[in-house]
Amino acid sequence: MKPFDAPLAPPAGVRALAVSQRRGAELRETQDWVAEEVPVALEYNGLSHAVMLATPADLEDFALGFSFTEDLVDSPSDVRDIEVVEGELGITVRLEIASSCFVRLKERRRSLAGRTGCGLCGAESLPQAVRRPPVLQSAACFDAIAVRLAMEALRERQPLHAASGASHAAAFADCSGALRVVREDVGRHNALDKLAGAMLRERRDASSGFVAVTSRASYEMAGKTARLGAPLLAAVSGVTALAVEVSEEAGLCLAGFARGDSLNLYAHPQRIRHGK
Amino acid sequence: MKPFDAPLAPPAGVRALAVSQRRGAELRETQDWVAEEVPVALEYNGLSHAVMLATPADLEDFALGFSFTEDLVDSPSDVRDIEVVEGELGITVRLEIASSCFVRLKERRRSLAGRTGCGLCGAESLPQAVRRPPVLQSAACFDAIAVRLAMEALRERQPLHAASGASHAAAFADCSGALRVVREDVGRHNALDKLAGAMLRERRDASSGFVAVTSRASYEMAGKTARLGAPLLAAVSGVTALAVEVSEEAGLCLAGFARGDSLNLYAHPQRIRHGK
Repeated sequence: MKPFDAPLAPPAGVRALAVSQRRGAELRETQDWVAEEVPVALEYNGLSHAVMLATPADLEDFALGFSFTEDLVDSPSDVRDIEVVEGELGITVRLEIASSCFVRLKERRRSLAGRTGCGLCGAESLPQAVRRPPVLQSAACFDAIAVRLAMEALRERQPLHAASGASHAAAFADCSGALRVVREDVGRHNALDKLAGAMLRERRDASSGFVAVTSRASYEMAGKTARLGAPLLAAVSGVTALAVEVSEEAGLCLAGFARGDSLNLYAHPQRIRHGK
Repeated sequence: MKPFDAPLAPPAGVRALAVSQRRGAELRETQDWVAEEVPVALEYNGLSHAVMLATPADLEDFALGFSFTEDLVDSPSDVRDIEVVEGELGITVRLEIASSCFVRLKERRRSLAGRTGCGLCGAESLPQAVRRPPVLQSAACFDAIAVRLAMEALRERQPLHAASGASHAAAFADCSGALRVVREDVGRHNALDKLAGAMLRERRDASSGFVAVTSRASYEMAGKTARLGAPLLAAVSGVTALAVEVSEEAGLCLAGFARGDSLNLYAHPQRIRHGK
Protein backbone atom coordinates (compact mmCIF):
# COMPACT_ATOMS: atom_id res chain seq x y z
CA MET A 1 0.00 0.00 0.00
CA LYS A 2 1.32 3.36 -1.06
CA PRO A 3 2.25 5.47 1.99
CA PHE A 4 2.13 9.26 1.95
CA ASP A 5 5.79 10.05 2.29
CA ALA A 6 5.95 13.51 0.81
CA PRO A 7 8.72 13.46 -1.77
CA LEU A 8 10.98 16.51 -1.34
CA ALA A 9 10.31 17.40 -4.95
CA PRO A 10 7.06 15.77 -6.10
CA PRO A 11 7.09 14.77 -9.77
CA ALA A 12 5.21 16.86 -12.31
CA GLY A 13 1.59 15.82 -12.67
CA VAL A 14 0.66 15.08 -9.05
CA ARG A 15 -1.30 17.09 -6.54
CA ALA A 16 -1.59 16.66 -2.74
CA LEU A 17 -5.20 16.06 -1.70
CA ALA A 18 -6.93 15.32 1.60
CA VAL A 19 -7.72 11.66 2.15
CA SER A 20 -9.39 9.57 4.85
CA GLN A 21 -7.14 6.61 5.17
CA ARG A 22 -8.34 3.34 6.64
CA ARG A 23 -5.76 0.74 7.64
CA GLY A 24 -7.37 -2.16 9.48
CA ALA A 25 -9.19 -0.68 12.46
CA GLU A 26 -7.19 2.53 12.27
CA LEU A 27 -8.56 5.63 10.56
CA ARG A 28 -6.70 8.84 9.95
CA GLU A 29 -7.09 12.08 8.07
CA THR A 30 -4.01 12.77 6.04
CA GLN A 31 -2.85 13.81 2.59
CA ASP A 32 -2.09 11.79 -0.48
CA TRP A 33 -0.46 12.45 -3.83
CA VAL A 34 -3.01 12.11 -6.58
CA ALA A 35 -2.26 12.04 -10.33
CA GLU A 36 -3.52 15.02 -12.30
CA GLU A 37 -5.77 14.19 -15.26
CA VAL A 38 -6.27 17.19 -17.49
CA PRO A 39 -8.06 17.69 -20.82
CA VAL A 40 -5.38 18.36 -23.43
CA ALA A 41 -6.53 19.74 -26.78
CA LEU A 42 -4.34 19.31 -29.85
CA GLU A 43 -4.62 22.11 -32.39
CA TYR A 44 -3.00 21.81 -35.84
CA ASN A 45 -2.32 25.05 -37.73
CA GLY A 46 -5.15 26.67 -35.79
CA LEU A 47 -7.58 23.78 -36.29
CA SER A 48 -8.80 22.01 -33.16
CA HIS A 49 -8.41 18.27 -33.77
CA ALA A 50 -8.71 16.15 -30.62
CA VAL A 51 -8.97 16.32 -26.86
CA MET A 52 -7.51 13.69 -24.61
CA LEU A 53 -7.22 13.31 -20.85
CA ALA A 54 -3.56 13.19 -19.93
CA THR A 55 -1.00 13.86 -17.24
CA PRO A 56 0.17 17.47 -17.70
CA ALA A 57 3.87 16.70 -18.15
CA ASP A 58 6.04 16.19 -21.23
CA LEU A 59 3.28 17.57 -23.42
CA GLU A 60 5.61 18.51 -26.29
CA ASP A 61 6.65 14.86 -26.40
CA PHE A 62 3.01 13.83 -26.26
CA ALA A 63 1.94 16.11 -29.10
CA LEU A 64 4.80 15.11 -31.37
CA GLY A 65 4.47 11.41 -30.52
CA PHE A 66 0.70 11.35 -31.06
CA SER A 67 1.05 13.20 -34.37
CA PHE A 68 3.58 10.64 -35.56
CA THR A 69 2.06 7.39 -34.26
CA GLU A 70 -1.38 8.46 -35.51
CA ASP A 71 0.15 9.09 -38.93
CA LEU A 72 -0.69 12.80 -39.03
CA VAL A 73 2.94 13.65 -39.85
CA ASP A 74 5.62 11.60 -41.55
CA SER A 75 8.64 12.79 -39.61
CA PRO A 76 9.54 15.14 -36.75
CA SER A 77 10.64 17.77 -39.26
CA ASP A 78 7.01 18.05 -40.42
CA VAL A 79 6.28 19.64 -37.04
CA ARG A 80 7.60 23.20 -37.25
CA ASP A 81 6.56 24.40 -33.82
CA ILE A 82 4.87 23.19 -30.64
CA GLU A 83 3.44 25.60 -28.08
CA VAL A 84 1.80 24.54 -24.82
CA VAL A 85 -0.84 27.01 -23.60
CA GLU A 86 -2.49 26.56 -20.19
CA GLY A 87 -6.08 27.71 -19.92
CA GLU A 88 -8.87 27.57 -17.40
CA LEU A 89 -10.59 24.51 -18.91
CA GLY A 90 -7.45 22.60 -19.74
CA ILE A 91 -4.31 22.77 -21.81
CA THR A 92 -4.07 23.50 -25.53
CA VAL A 93 -1.08 22.31 -27.48
CA ARG A 94 -0.68 24.31 -30.69
CA LEU A 95 1.26 22.59 -33.42
CA GLU A 96 2.42 24.10 -36.68
CA ILE A 97 2.77 21.32 -39.23
CA ALA A 98 4.01 21.20 -42.82
CA SER A 99 1.35 22.29 -45.27
CA SER A 100 1.37 18.93 -47.05
CA CYS A 101 0.48 17.22 -43.75
CA PHE A 102 -2.14 19.82 -42.99
CA VAL A 103 -3.79 19.27 -46.37
CA ARG A 104 -3.89 15.55 -45.60
CA LEU A 105 -5.32 16.20 -42.14
CA LYS A 106 -8.08 18.40 -43.54
CA GLU A 107 -8.79 15.81 -46.22
CA ARG A 108 -9.13 13.11 -43.59
CA ARG A 109 -11.40 15.34 -41.53
CA ARG A 110 -13.55 16.25 -44.48
CA SER A 111 -14.30 12.58 -45.02
CA LEU A 112 -15.59 12.50 -41.46
CA ALA A 113 -17.71 15.64 -41.78
CA GLY A 114 -20.74 15.65 -39.57
CA ARG A 115 -19.60 12.68 -37.60
CA THR A 116 -18.01 12.28 -34.24
CA GLY A 117 -15.47 9.70 -33.36
CA CYS A 118 -14.77 7.74 -30.26
CA GLY A 119 -12.07 5.57 -28.86
CA LEU A 120 -10.21 5.19 -32.10
CA CYS A 121 -9.08 8.72 -32.88
CA GLY A 122 -11.82 9.72 -35.21
CA ALA A 123 -12.84 6.37 -36.61
CA GLU A 124 -16.58 6.19 -36.89
CA SER A 125 -17.07 3.24 -39.17
CA LEU A 126 -15.45 -0.17 -39.26
CA PRO A 127 -13.30 0.22 -42.39
CA GLN A 128 -11.49 3.13 -40.74
CA ALA A 129 -11.12 1.40 -37.41
CA VAL A 130 -8.14 -0.90 -37.64
CA ARG A 131 -5.11 0.64 -39.30
CA ARG A 132 -2.20 -1.58 -40.23
CA PRO A 133 1.26 -0.29 -39.29
CA PRO A 134 4.14 -0.52 -41.78
CA VAL A 135 6.24 -3.71 -41.85
CA LEU A 136 9.38 -3.39 -39.72
CA GLN A 137 12.66 -3.38 -41.63
CA SER A 138 14.83 -4.15 -38.61
CA ALA A 139 16.27 -7.67 -38.26
CA ALA A 140 17.23 -7.08 -34.62
CA CYS A 141 17.11 -9.89 -32.08
CA PHE A 142 17.35 -9.61 -28.30
CA ASP A 143 18.59 -11.72 -25.41
CA ALA A 144 15.76 -12.72 -23.08
CA ILE A 145 17.84 -11.38 -20.21
CA ALA A 146 17.72 -7.87 -21.74
CA VAL A 147 13.92 -7.87 -21.46
CA ARG A 148 14.15 -8.96 -17.86
CA LEU A 149 16.69 -6.27 -17.00
CA ALA A 150 14.61 -3.56 -18.67
CA MET A 151 11.46 -4.62 -16.84
CA GLU A 152 13.27 -4.66 -13.50
CA ALA A 153 14.83 -1.26 -14.13
CA LEU A 154 11.48 0.20 -15.18
CA ARG A 155 9.99 -0.58 -11.78
CA GLU A 156 12.40 1.94 -10.22
CA ARG A 157 11.94 4.63 -12.84
CA GLN A 158 8.32 5.67 -12.24
CA PRO A 159 8.18 8.68 -9.92
CA LEU A 160 4.59 9.50 -10.94
CA HIS A 161 3.43 5.97 -10.19
CA ALA A 162 5.40 5.81 -6.95
CA ALA A 163 3.64 8.98 -5.79
CA SER A 164 0.14 8.38 -7.17
CA GLY A 165 -0.29 4.65 -7.87
CA ALA A 166 -2.44 5.62 -10.83
CA SER A 167 -0.24 5.78 -13.91
CA HIS A 168 1.48 3.69 -16.54
CA ALA A 169 4.97 3.89 -17.97
CA ALA A 170 6.50 3.23 -21.38
CA ALA A 171 10.24 2.93 -21.87
CA PHE A 172 12.76 2.45 -24.64
CA ALA A 173 15.59 0.06 -23.83
CA ASP A 174 18.74 -0.61 -25.82
CA CYS A 175 19.71 -4.14 -26.83
CA SER A 176 21.36 -4.76 -23.46
CA GLY A 177 18.15 -3.86 -21.64
CA ALA A 178 19.40 -0.49 -20.35
CA LEU A 179 16.60 2.09 -20.26
CA ARG A 180 17.28 5.07 -22.48
CA VAL A 181 13.98 6.99 -22.26
CA VAL A 182 11.02 6.61 -19.87
CA ARG A 183 7.70 8.44 -19.88
CA GLU A 184 4.65 8.19 -17.63
CA ASP A 185 0.98 9.13 -17.93
CA VAL A 186 -2.40 8.29 -16.41
CA GLY A 187 -3.20 6.74 -19.81
CA ARG A 188 -1.14 3.88 -21.21
CA HIS A 189 -1.50 5.05 -24.81
CA ASN A 190 -0.43 8.53 -23.77
CA ALA A 191 2.67 7.17 -22.02
CA LEU A 192 3.63 5.40 -25.25
CA ASP A 193 2.96 8.51 -27.35
CA LYS A 194 5.12 10.57 -24.98
CA LEU A 195 7.88 8.00 -25.32
CA ALA A 196 7.59 8.13 -29.12
CA GLY A 197 7.74 11.92 -29.08
CA ALA A 198 10.79 11.96 -26.81
CA MET A 199 12.54 9.44 -29.08
CA LEU A 200 11.80 11.54 -32.14
CA ARG A 201 12.87 14.79 -30.49
CA GLU A 202 16.16 13.24 -29.39
CA ARG A 203 16.57 11.70 -32.86
CA ARG A 204 17.03 8.24 -31.40
CA ASP A 205 16.91 5.25 -33.69
CA ALA A 206 14.33 2.79 -32.33
CA SER A 207 15.26 -0.08 -34.64
CA SER A 208 17.99 -1.62 -32.48
CA GLY A 209 16.16 -1.52 -29.14
CA PHE A 210 12.72 -2.29 -27.76
CA VAL A 211 9.73 -0.83 -25.98
CA ALA A 212 8.72 -1.95 -22.48
CA VAL A 213 5.35 -1.06 -20.96
CA THR A 214 3.88 -1.59 -17.49
CA SER A 215 0.41 -2.33 -18.84
CA ARG A 216 -1.33 -4.75 -21.15
CA ALA A 217 -0.59 -4.66 -24.88
CA SER A 218 -3.59 -3.82 -27.00
CA TYR A 219 -3.81 -3.46 -30.76
CA GLU A 220 -3.12 0.25 -30.64
CA MET A 221 0.03 -0.16 -28.57
CA ALA A 222 1.42 -2.77 -30.95
CA GLY A 223 0.65 -0.47 -33.89
CA LYS A 224 2.27 2.57 -32.29
CA THR A 225 5.42 0.56 -31.41
CA ALA A 226 5.77 -0.71 -34.97
CA ARG A 227 5.18 2.77 -36.37
CA LEU A 228 8.00 4.02 -34.14
CA GLY A 229 10.22 1.34 -35.68
CA ALA A 230 10.97 -0.71 -32.57
CA PRO A 231 10.98 -4.47 -33.33
CA LEU A 232 9.86 -5.69 -29.88
CA LEU A 233 7.07 -4.71 -27.50
CA ALA A 234 7.30 -6.25 -24.02
CA ALA A 235 4.34 -5.86 -21.67
CA VAL A 236 4.03 -6.70 -17.98
CA SER A 237 0.47 -7.87 -18.50
CA GLY A 238 -1.42 -9.79 -21.17
CA VAL A 239 -1.96 -9.09 -24.86
CA THR A 240 -5.08 -9.04 -26.99
CA ALA A 241 -5.74 -11.25 -30.01
CA LEU A 242 -5.86 -8.20 -32.30
CA ALA A 243 -2.48 -7.05 -30.97
CA VAL A 244 -1.09 -10.47 -31.89
CA GLU A 245 -2.57 -10.23 -35.40
CA VAL A 246 -1.16 -6.75 -36.05
CA SER A 247 2.24 -7.75 -34.62
CA GLU A 248 2.40 -10.82 -36.87
CA GLU A 249 1.80 -8.68 -39.94
CA ALA A 250 4.22 -5.93 -38.93
CA GLY A 251 7.11 -8.23 -37.99
CA LEU A 252 6.84 -7.07 -34.38
CA CYS A 253 7.85 -9.44 -31.59
CA LEU A 254 5.07 -9.29 -29.00
CA ALA A 255 5.88 -10.39 -25.46
CA GLY A 256 3.38 -10.52 -22.61
CA PHE A 257 3.59 -11.40 -18.92
CA ALA A 258 7.23 -10.27 -18.92
CA ARG A 259 7.92 -10.84 -15.23
CA GLY A 260 11.17 -12.03 -13.71
CA ASP A 261 12.38 -15.11 -15.55
CA SER A 262 9.10 -15.57 -17.40
CA LEU A 263 7.94 -14.37 -20.77
CA ASN A 264 5.19 -15.33 -23.22
CA LEU A 265 5.98 -14.69 -26.88
CA TYR A 266 2.85 -14.29 -28.99
CA ALA A 267 4.33 -13.09 -32.29
CA HIS A 268 7.74 -13.34 -33.97
CA PRO A 269 9.40 -15.29 -31.15
CA GLN A 270 12.52 -15.66 -33.31
CA ARG A 271 13.52 -12.16 -32.24
CA ILE A 272 14.27 -13.46 -28.74
CA ARG A 273 17.45 -15.44 -28.02
CA HIS A 274 17.12 -17.77 -25.07
CA GLY A 275 20.80 -18.51 -24.36
CA LYS A 276 21.73 -18.20 -20.68
CA MET B 1 1.95 -16.42 -13.81
CA LYS B 2 -1.13 -17.52 -15.66
CA PRO B 3 -0.89 -21.21 -16.66
CA PHE B 4 -2.59 -22.61 -19.73
CA ASP B 5 -5.10 -24.86 -18.11
CA ALA B 6 -7.73 -25.17 -20.78
CA PRO B 7 -11.05 -24.40 -19.11
CA LEU B 8 -13.67 -26.94 -20.16
CA ALA B 9 -15.85 -24.13 -21.44
CA PRO B 10 -13.69 -21.07 -22.16
CA PRO B 11 -15.49 -17.79 -21.47
CA ALA B 12 -16.80 -15.70 -24.36
CA GLY B 13 -14.20 -13.32 -25.75
CA VAL B 14 -11.06 -15.47 -25.61
CA ARG B 15 -9.20 -17.34 -28.32
CA ALA B 16 -6.51 -20.03 -28.03
CA LEU B 17 -3.29 -18.93 -29.73
CA ALA B 18 0.17 -20.45 -30.10
CA VAL B 19 2.73 -19.08 -27.65
CA SER B 20 6.43 -19.62 -26.93
CA GLN B 21 6.56 -19.77 -23.18
CA ARG B 22 9.76 -19.10 -21.30
CA ARG B 23 9.90 -20.09 -17.62
CA GLY B 24 13.41 -19.67 -16.26
CA ALA B 25 15.73 -21.76 -18.46
CA GLU B 26 12.80 -23.78 -19.77
CA LEU B 27 11.22 -23.00 -23.11
CA ARG B 28 8.14 -24.63 -24.55
CA GLU B 29 5.73 -24.23 -27.41
CA THR B 30 2.20 -24.33 -26.15
CA GLN B 31 -1.12 -22.56 -26.38
CA ASP B 32 -2.53 -19.68 -24.40
CA TRP B 33 -5.92 -18.06 -24.03
CA VAL B 34 -5.81 -14.54 -25.41
CA ALA B 35 -8.54 -11.91 -25.03
CA GLU B 36 -10.32 -10.91 -28.22
CA GLU B 37 -10.28 -7.18 -29.01
CA VAL B 38 -12.72 -6.34 -31.77
CA PRO B 39 -13.82 -3.06 -33.35
CA VAL B 40 -17.43 -2.50 -32.33
CA ALA B 41 -19.36 0.17 -34.22
CA LEU B 42 -22.44 1.74 -32.66
CA GLU B 43 -25.10 2.81 -35.14
CA TYR B 44 -28.10 4.88 -34.02
CA ASN B 45 -31.21 4.81 -36.24
CA GLY B 46 -28.95 3.96 -39.16
CA LEU B 47 -26.35 6.63 -38.38
CA SER B 48 -22.84 5.39 -37.61
CA HIS B 49 -21.73 7.14 -34.44
CA ALA B 50 -18.64 5.63 -32.84
CA VAL B 51 -16.27 2.70 -33.00
CA MET B 52 -14.60 1.24 -29.95
CA LEU B 53 -12.33 -1.72 -29.37
CA ALA B 54 -14.06 -4.12 -27.02
CA THR B 55 -14.38 -7.71 -25.91
CA PRO B 56 -17.09 -9.29 -28.07
CA ALA B 57 -19.38 -10.38 -25.23
CA ASP B 58 -22.41 -8.76 -23.60
CA LEU B 59 -22.62 -6.26 -26.46
CA GLU B 60 -26.30 -5.45 -25.86
CA ASP B 61 -25.32 -4.42 -22.34
CA PHE B 62 -22.42 -2.43 -23.74
CA ALA B 63 -24.53 -0.57 -26.29
CA LEU B 64 -27.28 0.28 -23.82
CA GLY B 65 -24.81 1.22 -21.05
CA PHE B 66 -22.71 3.43 -23.32
CA SER B 67 -25.80 5.17 -24.68
CA PHE B 68 -26.95 5.92 -21.14
CA THR B 69 -23.67 6.87 -19.44
CA GLU B 70 -22.73 9.06 -22.43
CA ASP B 71 -26.08 10.80 -22.10
CA LEU B 72 -27.34 9.84 -25.57
CA VAL B 73 -30.56 8.45 -24.06
CA ASP B 74 -32.36 9.35 -20.85
CA SER B 75 -33.67 5.92 -19.90
CA PRO B 76 -33.61 2.32 -21.14
CA SER B 77 -37.07 2.78 -22.64
CA ASP B 78 -35.57 5.29 -25.10
CA VAL B 79 -33.80 2.33 -26.70
CA ARG B 80 -36.43 0.49 -28.74
CA ASP B 81 -34.23 -2.21 -30.22
CA ILE B 82 -30.66 -3.47 -30.19
CA GLU B 83 -29.30 -5.77 -32.88
CA VAL B 84 -25.76 -7.17 -32.93
CA VAL B 85 -24.48 -7.87 -36.46
CA GLU B 86 -21.14 -9.60 -36.98
CA GLY B 87 -19.21 -8.58 -40.06
CA GLU B 88 -15.82 -9.20 -41.58
CA LEU B 89 -14.22 -6.03 -40.25
CA GLY B 90 -15.83 -6.10 -36.85
CA ILE B 91 -19.19 -5.99 -35.14
CA THR B 92 -21.94 -3.45 -35.69
CA VAL B 93 -24.51 -2.84 -32.99
CA ARG B 94 -27.63 -1.25 -34.44
CA LEU B 95 -29.73 0.68 -31.97
CA GLU B 96 -33.17 2.13 -32.58
CA ILE B 97 -33.65 5.05 -30.22
CA ALA B 98 -36.57 7.37 -29.50
CA SER B 99 -36.86 10.13 -32.07
CA SER B 100 -36.39 12.84 -29.43
CA CYS B 101 -33.01 11.31 -28.49
CA PHE B 102 -32.06 10.92 -32.14
CA VAL B 103 -32.82 14.60 -32.80
CA ARG B 104 -30.55 15.49 -29.89
CA LEU B 105 -27.84 13.15 -31.16
CA LYS B 106 -27.93 14.70 -34.63
CA GLU B 107 -27.88 18.17 -33.09
CA ARG B 108 -24.81 17.30 -31.07
CA ARG B 109 -23.14 15.87 -34.16
CA ARG B 110 -23.99 18.88 -36.27
CA SER B 111 -22.14 21.09 -33.83
CA LEU B 112 -19.09 18.90 -34.45
CA ALA B 113 -19.44 18.95 -38.23
CA GLY B 114 -16.17 18.61 -40.06
CA ARG B 115 -14.29 17.67 -36.95
CA THR B 116 -13.05 14.42 -35.54
CA GLY B 117 -12.97 13.51 -31.92
CA CYS B 118 -10.63 11.50 -29.85
CA GLY B 119 -10.49 9.96 -26.43
CA LEU B 120 -13.47 11.84 -25.11
CA CYS B 121 -16.30 10.55 -27.25
CA GLY B 122 -16.44 13.30 -29.79
CA ALA B 123 -15.07 16.19 -27.79
CA GLU B 124 -12.75 18.24 -29.93
CA SER B 125 -12.45 21.42 -27.95
CA LEU B 126 -11.93 22.04 -24.26
CA PRO B 127 -15.39 23.38 -23.34
CA GLN B 128 -16.92 20.09 -24.51
CA ALA B 129 -14.33 17.94 -22.82
CA VAL B 130 -15.32 17.61 -19.18
CA ARG B 131 -18.98 16.88 -18.62
CA ARG B 132 -20.39 17.10 -15.12
CA PRO B 133 -22.64 14.25 -13.99
CA PRO B 134 -25.90 14.94 -12.14
CA VAL B 135 -25.79 15.26 -8.35
CA LEU B 136 -26.66 11.98 -6.61
CA GLN B 137 -29.92 11.96 -4.67
CA SER B 138 -29.13 8.85 -2.64
CA ALA B 139 -28.17 9.26 1.02
CA ALA B 140 -26.86 5.69 1.26
CA CYS B 141 -23.91 4.84 3.49
CA PHE B 142 -21.92 1.62 3.53
CA ASP B 143 -19.95 -0.42 6.03
CA ALA B 144 -16.26 -0.56 5.18
CA ILE B 145 -16.48 -4.33 5.48
CA ALA B 146 -18.95 -4.43 2.58
CA VAL B 147 -16.36 -2.87 0.27
CA ARG B 148 -13.80 -5.41 1.39
CA LEU B 149 -16.16 -8.33 0.83
CA ALA B 150 -17.12 -7.08 -2.63
CA MET B 151 -13.49 -6.66 -3.66
CA GLU B 152 -12.60 -10.13 -2.42
CA ALA B 153 -15.57 -11.69 -4.18
CA LEU B 154 -14.74 -9.86 -7.41
CA ARG B 155 -11.38 -11.56 -7.59
CA GLU B 156 -13.13 -14.90 -8.06
CA ARG B 157 -15.69 -13.65 -10.57
CA GLN B 158 -13.49 -12.85 -13.58
CA PRO B 159 -13.41 -15.80 -15.99
CA LEU B 160 -12.11 -13.63 -18.85
CA HIS B 161 -9.26 -12.31 -16.73
CA ALA B 162 -8.48 -15.74 -15.31
CA ALA B 163 -8.12 -17.06 -18.86
CA SER B 164 -6.44 -14.10 -20.56
CA GLY B 165 -4.83 -11.90 -17.89
CA ALA B 166 -5.72 -8.92 -20.06
CA SER B 167 -9.07 -7.57 -18.93
CA HIS B 168 -10.80 -5.46 -16.32
CA ALA B 169 -14.00 -6.05 -14.40
CA ALA B 170 -16.74 -3.80 -13.05
CA ALA B 171 -19.31 -5.04 -10.54
CA PHE B 172 -22.37 -3.84 -8.73
CA ALA B 173 -22.58 -4.87 -5.08
CA ASP B 174 -25.50 -4.50 -2.70
CA CYS B 175 -25.08 -2.76 0.65
CA SER B 176 -23.80 -5.98 2.27
CA GLY B 177 -21.04 -6.28 -0.33
CA ALA B 178 -22.65 -9.19 -2.21
CA LEU B 179 -22.00 -8.97 -5.96
CA ARG B 180 -25.19 -8.69 -8.00
CA VAL B 181 -23.83 -8.07 -11.50
CA VAL B 182 -20.31 -8.43 -12.93
CA ARG B 183 -19.04 -7.58 -16.41
CA GLU B 184 -15.58 -7.85 -17.98
CA ASP B 185 -13.87 -6.25 -20.97
CA VAL B 186 -10.38 -5.55 -22.31
CA GLY B 187 -11.21 -1.88 -21.69
CA ARG B 188 -12.05 -0.62 -18.21
CA HIS B 189 -14.56 1.96 -19.48
CA ASN B 190 -16.24 -0.74 -21.54
CA ALA B 191 -16.52 -3.04 -18.52
CA LEU B 192 -18.27 -0.23 -16.63
CA ASP B 193 -20.57 0.52 -19.58
CA LYS B 194 -21.48 -3.17 -19.83
CA LEU B 195 -22.26 -3.18 -16.12
CA ALA B 196 -24.43 -0.08 -16.51
CA GLY B 197 -26.28 -1.66 -19.42
CA ALA B 198 -26.87 -4.91 -17.53
CA MET B 199 -28.22 -2.96 -14.54
CA LEU B 200 -30.57 -0.99 -16.75
CA ARG B 201 -31.78 -4.08 -18.63
CA GLU B 202 -32.48 -5.87 -15.37
CA ARG B 203 -34.14 -2.70 -14.00
CA ARG B 204 -31.93 -2.74 -10.92
CA ASP B 205 -31.85 0.30 -8.69
CA ALA B 206 -28.23 1.40 -8.27
CA SER B 207 -28.89 3.90 -5.51
CA SER B 208 -28.61 1.52 -2.55
CA GLY B 209 -25.44 -0.31 -3.64
CA PHE B 210 -22.03 0.51 -5.08
CA VAL B 211 -19.72 -0.07 -8.01
CA ALA B 212 -16.41 -1.94 -7.61
CA VAL B 213 -13.74 -1.92 -10.33
CA THR B 214 -10.45 -3.77 -10.70
CA SER B 215 -8.70 -0.80 -12.27
CA ARG B 216 -7.86 2.79 -11.48
CA ALA B 217 -10.63 5.37 -11.23
CA SER B 218 -10.40 8.13 -13.77
CA TYR B 219 -12.71 11.08 -14.31
CA GLU B 220 -14.82 9.21 -16.84
CA MET B 221 -15.39 6.25 -14.53
CA ALA B 222 -16.52 8.51 -11.68
CA GLY B 223 -18.87 10.31 -14.06
CA LYS B 224 -20.36 7.08 -15.44
CA THR B 225 -20.90 5.70 -11.91
CA ALA B 226 -22.71 8.86 -10.79
CA ARG B 227 -24.81 8.88 -13.95
CA LEU B 228 -25.84 5.30 -13.16
CA GLY B 229 -26.95 6.53 -9.74
CA ALA B 230 -24.58 4.51 -7.54
CA PRO B 231 -23.30 6.59 -4.59
CA LEU B 232 -19.90 4.85 -4.19
CA LEU B 233 -17.12 3.88 -6.59
CA ALA B 234 -14.43 1.63 -5.13
CA ALA B 235 -11.29 1.00 -7.16
CA VAL B 236 -8.45 -1.46 -6.56
CA SER B 237 -5.93 1.08 -7.84
CA GLY B 238 -5.45 4.83 -7.54
CA VAL B 239 -7.67 7.72 -8.54
CA THR B 240 -7.01 10.86 -10.54
CA ALA B 241 -7.39 14.42 -9.28
CA LEU B 242 -10.13 15.11 -11.86
CA ALA B 243 -12.03 12.01 -10.67
CA VAL B 244 -11.88 13.44 -7.12
CA GLU B 245 -13.18 16.81 -8.33
CA VAL B 246 -16.10 15.31 -10.25
CA SER B 247 -16.94 12.98 -7.34
CA GLU B 248 -16.97 15.88 -4.87
CA GLU B 249 -19.45 17.75 -7.04
CA ALA B 250 -21.68 14.75 -7.70
CA GLY B 251 -21.88 13.56 -4.10
CA LEU B 252 -20.06 10.37 -5.08
CA CYS B 253 -17.91 8.61 -2.50
CA LEU B 254 -14.62 7.80 -4.23
CA ALA B 255 -12.46 5.05 -2.75
CA GLY B 256 -9.07 4.01 -4.07
CA PHE B 257 -6.55 1.32 -3.15
CA ALA B 258 -9.39 -0.82 -1.83
CA ARG B 259 -7.34 -3.84 -0.85
CA GLY B 260 -7.92 -6.11 2.13
CA ASP B 261 -8.37 -4.01 5.25
CA SER B 262 -7.21 -0.82 3.56
CA LEU B 263 -9.08 1.92 1.78
CA ASN B 264 -8.35 5.52 0.81
CA LEU B 265 -11.38 7.81 0.67
CA TYR B 266 -10.86 10.78 -1.62
CA ALA B 267 -14.37 12.25 -1.78
CA HIS B 268 -17.46 12.07 0.46
CA PRO B 269 -15.89 9.82 3.10
CA GLN B 270 -19.04 10.23 5.23
CA ARG B 271 -20.66 7.53 3.09
CA ILE B 272 -18.40 4.91 4.68
CA ARG B 273 -19.08 3.62 8.22
CA HIS B 274 -15.99 2.35 9.94
CA GLY B 275 -17.56 0.36 12.78
CA LYS B 276 -16.05 -3.12 13.24
